[in-house]
Amino acid sequence: MSKAIVLLSGGLDSATTLAMARAEGFACYALSFDYGQRHRCELEASKQVAAQIGVIEHKTVRLSLDDIGGSALTDLSIAVPTVESEGIPVTYVPARNTIFLAIALGWAEVLQVQDIFIGVNAVDYSGYPDCRPEFIHAFEAMANLATKAGVEGQSFHLHTPLIDLSKGEIIRTGTRLGVDYGLTISCYSPDAQGRACGQCDSCRLRRQGFAEAGVADPTSYVSS
Amino acid sequence: MSKAIVLLSGGLDSATTLAMARAEGFACYALSFDYGQRHRCELEASKQVAAQIGVIEHKTVRLSLDDIGGSALTDLSIAVPTVESEGIPVTYVPARNTIFLAIALGWAEVLQVQDIFIGVNAVDYSGYPDCRPEFIHAFEAMANLATKAGVEGQSFHLHTPLIDLSKGEIIRTGTRLGVDYGLTISCYSPDAQGRACGQCDSCRLRRQGFAEAGVADPTSYVSS
Repeated sequence: MSKAIVLLSGGLDSATTLAMARAEGFACYALSFDYGQRHRCELEASKQVAAQIGVIEHKTVRLSLDDIGGSALTDLSIAVPTVESEGIPVTYVPARNTIFLAIALGWAEVLQVQDIFIGVNAVDYSGYPDCRPEFIHAFEAMANLATKAGVEGQSFHLHTPLIDLSKGEIIRTGTRLGVDYGLTISCYSPDAQGRACGQCDSCRLRRQGFAEAGVADPTSYVSS
Repeated sequence: MSKAIVLLSGGLDSATTLAMARAEGFACYALSFDYGQRHRCELEASKQVAAQIGVIEHKTVRLSLDDIGGSALTDLSIAVPTVESEGIPVTYVPARNTIFLAIALGWAEVLQVQDIFIGVNAVDYSGYPDCRPEFIHAFEAMANLATKAGVEGQSFHLHTPLIDLSKGEIIRTGTRLGVDYGLTISCYSPDAQGRACGQCDSCRLRRQGFAEAGVADPTSYVSS
């Protein structure tokens, strides 16, 4: 059975990605990041998702991206927008997927794993540059030059099974594979009880997705 | 005055790199990592080096690479070799430069900086794949696709002023620029007093470098 590393945030997309990797027959190693995010409750969600879908190991790496800031998700003085914005939004965390994939690459070398799954999506996405196919291909090329494994002829493959799916298609796929979306958290700005705000970009995309999929949304939202 | 981020480990190479960036006229932002390294005393050295050479800001990002392990530098159960080995040595930290550069890229976006300095060296080096020019070029290409700044037309430039220099040339250059090498620590396995072991790859290269440069080595070694 081939091994794969799966980036797991605790959100809807990465939970579906994990279920798809499992369905492809991979033995999965889930990787989460405690990076100073304001929606830290997604880490508890990631644990529950990993347990529900089934992984060999789930690791959470600590990383103080709040020391760098520059995003509404890592700097509490920047508010999460409640209306849709033009261009790349302030919830963009500078170089986040590059950083997460770089650490995944390190763990892949240690585990001697060649396959890394990431739930990026270029359709119903928030305009983040590090969710685009051209970024993924450039990272793959770099990874094969960066590593001992690459030098020795092992080739890394980044899997992006969601990249061309709409949010509705993602939810239909995950539902078919048995994902319990009630365990996942998408909201950037949940309240103290972990309830979703219902107003941020991520809540908006999630709601539209469930409506498009024709699947009941299990999320508890503070505001409609 | 242009700004630049300089990766600063507290070792000889990165101290020289910082001095060269300053000599080129950059206003420097030094970046260090508390990544679970066994030779953690290099962090204290990095502070002293930053202060001696002069920086606008010095940031240390915490990152638990010891959770991943796979290297003699991050896993205390793997011994640091005291004799030269063939191929890529066990002190190689999987994907370390990729991870460090990815975080530097994130900070560069926040600071709106386009220039990043890293003291990699492809001559007197330890055989690490992520010190080679082909890796640096691939990272640069990826960085320009990964980021909001890249999408908006800003182009990142990785500077590797040491890449073609021998260790002796590096030391001669730094000495000319006023680097106090007595503040730097190269050893992978220093004792409790911070004295260099004198036997690891890094100590060996450092000693040869001072001998080649004809400069007195200020290092206090435990063993000759």
